[in-house]
Amino acid sequence: MSVKNFFRVHFYDTDLMGVVHHSNYIRWFETGRVEFLRSIGISLTEMMSDKILFPLTEVKAKYFHPARFDDELELETNPLTLTKVKMEFNYKIRRKGEEEILVSGYSQNVFTSMETGKIIRLPDKYFLKLDKAMIEEMD
Amino acid sequence: MSVKNFFRVHFYDTDLMGVVHHSNYIRWFETGRVEFLRSIGISLTEMMSDKILFPLTEVKAKYFHPARFDDELELETNPLTLTKVKMEFNYKIRRKGEEEILVSGYSQNVFTSMETGKIIRLPDKYFLKLDKAMIEEMD
Amino acid sequence: MSVKNFFRVHFYDTDLMGVVHHSNYIRWFETGRVEFLRSIGISLTEMMSDKILFPLTEVKAKYFHPARFDDELELETNPLTLTKVKMEFNYKIRRKGEEEILVSGYSQNVFTSMETGKIIRLPDKYFLKLDKAMIEEMD
Amino acid sequence: MSVKNFFRVHFYDTDLMGVVHHSNYIRWFETGRVEFLRSIGISLTEMMSDKILFPLTEVKAKYFHPARFDDELELETNPLTLTKVKMEFNYKIRRKGEEEILVSGYSQNVFTSMETGKIIRLPDKYFLKLDKAMIEEMD
Repeated sequence: MSVKNFFRVHFYDTDLMGVVHHSNYIRWFETGRVEFLRSIGISLTEMMSDKILFPLTEVKAKYFHPARFDDELELETNPLTLTKVKMEFNYKIRRKGEEEILVSGYSQNVFTSMETGKIIRLPDKYFLKLDKAMIEEMD
Repeated sequence: MSVKNFFRVHFYDTDLMGVVHHSNYIRWFETGRVEFLRSIGISLTEMMSDKILFPLTEVKAKYFHPARFDDELELETNPLTLTKVKMEFNYKIRRKGEEEILVSGYSQNVFTSMETGKIIRLPDKYFLKLDKAMIEEMD
Repeated sequence: MSVKNFFRVHFYDTDLMGVVHHSNYIRWFETGRVEFLRSIGISLTEMMSDKILFPLTEVKAKYFHPARFDDELELETNPLTLTKVKMEFNYKIRRKGEEEILVSGYSQNVFTSMETGKIIRLPDKYFLKLDKAMIEEMD
Repeated sequence: MSVKNFFRVHFYDTDLMGVVHHSNYIRWFETGRVEFLRSIGISLTEMMSDKILFPLTEVKAKYFHPARFDDELELETNPLTLTKVKMEFNYKIRRKGEEEILVSGYSQNVFTSMETGKIIRLPDKYFLKLDKAMIEEMD
């Protein structure tokens, strides 16, 4: 079960080398996670109002080809692990409608308590949705 | 009473035109406000722990000459108005040790309650420091 | 003749005050300019390949109400002046489908030569499109 | 041979979770590379004027503890591989004067021709400096 979102490269995403600055892909991965969670009915705003945070604990990216100003990009987000304590996703960024992967990535988030800062186990309210998505992914 | 802070232009501050993206000067103005307030003994972290926020309500910038990657810049921050309800500052950005102004700016912040979102009047704990700085500025 | 574009507030657009950082609206104004120009058949990529740059010379913003994570925003871009030497635009940002203006803004760009850095007069290839849009705006 | 640079966390570096947004550490790693190269006499501006680019091909980060607004941070940059075709660095970010690592990272850059986009072998003018630094690192 992969989720795709689409966006344009803005002028402010570029740098002096004439292409997208590498840090922006890390930001775009985040939009993929948010859209994936939205697609299975999980709202990060609701999670925060339940005093649950979801800090990033690891991120990786490999850069194969540069994206450029005004490109229309497609971000494909796939869940790798979705448990009560962490979420891991893989990412692929392509130009819309093209096969070639420009950038691939990975991220890991854990769930923590807004009050204690400690890692917590996600309530079923959220976990059951993650688990259902993961089972579909495994099939 | 002006406060100066110094910083380098980073690669990620540049854009496809080969110079600093204009939005970054708006961010740098913020660092000038923070350093000005620090210089008169006001900590924004303390203010937030007192449930006071300081949203920006207006900003202006004029861009005369571009800054480039690796330039060492000087930001001069001058208070224009410091009252119980708002702060207004003027900014000048130059290359370190040069006279020519690259970018000038203006900002206005108001003080609001973290709980109600409404504009508040700043407690004397903070205001007296602002007022002292403003009197020195007027002399 | 106004042009509207729509986008979500991302997590990375927010700051410690829990709302969108003010500098991001300045970036979003840029996306409005680009979409306005696209709508009248002008591509900034083509302009750059013709060795024409379009540096920002002035920007202003007034902040009335904060936007928040995951808000869907609408940016309305209106041309104020479109000549052979400069472009001025006004901006209004609202939540999608709402009347209330969150942030309003203004920008001025000039056209310069990539080779000399000097202000130039835009070739008719581009200017006639700007002029037509401006005449429609005045009607 | 490690190089350290120091900087403050700015307000605009934070996000809605009240801490530094994870993408900013990726940007900071870049400042460490630049300072490392400066320390051994290599200027990226000069490299670009020689038509050599240095795109990032891989980045990784592990996030152990969050940095907060106004923290003074120390970035330690260590070379891992410096050859004619690529540079690999490791990074450690701590609060200034503290032992605890907040974030660790890794990056790989390759050298490419500005004209062809292909990977090139770095001229001795630059490589000899990199090689000397690497030999010192190995000792």
